[in-house]
Amino acid sequence: MPADAEPRGPSVFKIPEGDNRERLVCPDCGFIYYDNPRIVTGAVCLWEDLVLLCRRDIEPRRNYWTLPAGYLELGETTEAGAVREAWEEARARIAIEALLGVYNVPRISQVQLIYRARLLSLDIGPGPESLEVRLFSWEAIPWGELAFPSVHWALEHFAQTRHLSEFAPRSNPPGASDRLEGEGL
Amino acid sequence: MPADAEPRGPSVFKIPEGDNRERLVCPDCGFIYYDNPRIVTGAVCLWEDLVLLCRRDIEPRRNYWTLPAGYLELGETTEAGAVREAWEEARARIAIEALLGVYNVPRISQVQLIYRARLLSLDIGPGPESLEVRLFSWEAIPWGELAFPSVHWALEHFAQTRHLSEFAPRSNPPGASDRLEGEGL
Ligand SMILES: [Zn+2]
Ligand SMILES: [Zn+2]
Repeated sequence: MPADAEPRGPSVFKIPEGDNRERLVCPDCGFIYYDNPRIVTGAVCLWEDLVLLCRRDIEPRRNYWTLPAGYLELGETTEAGAVREAWEEARARIAIEALLGVYNVPRISQVQLIYRARLLSLDIGPGPESLEVRLFSWEAIPWGELAFPSVHWALEHFAQTRHLSEFAPRSNPPGASDRLEGEGL
Repeated sequence: MPADAEPRGPSVFKIPEGDNRERLVCPDCGFIYYDNPRIVTGAVCLWEDLVLLCRRDIEPRRNYWTLPAGYLELGETTEAGAVREAWEEARARIAIEALLGVYNVPRISQVQLIYRARLLSLDIGPGPESLEVRLFSWEAIPWGELAFPSVHWALEHFAQTRHLSEFAPRSNPPGASDRLEGEGL
């Protein structure tokens, strides 16, 4: 490629020699990109009976409410990742209590591990990716303005398990779509 | 790069503009490689009281015994991945019963989801990555020849939970190393 061109990077699908699936290959340098599913880690965070939600300041679903959650980083445990995301998105300090749900979103190659956690302080505030963070009573949760189906699932599963000290983590509700209602469920 | 050179691909660590950590960048085309933690999925597979193990035909830990497990593929759920790995490594047909353990190995950026499963048939055999597959009674398990610490953990956790129909998945034993004894625990 010309020295002043934008790098294209791996952008052409090919089956590499000795492989059995298509991978993205760079047309400029031949590098093969072995992409992998991503792990999302997050938490339903509680202060007494109140649940912490963040209003998103980023796309997709800007302005909608979500749990503090995000991609696991290299070298990080899933629990540490959930603690970090609560800090980054809601300036919240939390203690992990239990694994609440394992949600698979194969359409976008995501596995979400959502924990139940306790807020250690009421001192919270929006991080750079949030417009607003708030504690909601169960009745006040803005059900119609949740960012993703898995936020809905995690909150329902939290309600089902909140009085249990040991329980199996929930997974995608049977027959539930991982798509947003707005996309035509 | 010269047209006949081997592609180097992303091989130089740099902090890209607007980022806050070092990423691998390709010195030839400028492509930035955002690497992510990997998900391993697998199962402790049972036939009555017998546990399925596979003797590895690949490095690392060739000749040592392991559970059927491997990297989750794009577009796959963790349960489907565990079923696929049982087939690929042990030609075993299985039904997933419960999530047994979630093991974090941050040193190598791995999250392992290990299920408890039932063998649907005694018709098993080594796949291309196994030298041998066998059903072991608990007493006969080759404890000194297990491939990885997490295989040991999953078997112990299976024993702790085998009579429970609902339980919280176990995680890394407190203080346990994710390194092999041979590496100096
Ligand atoms: Zn390239
Ligand atoms: Zn390149």
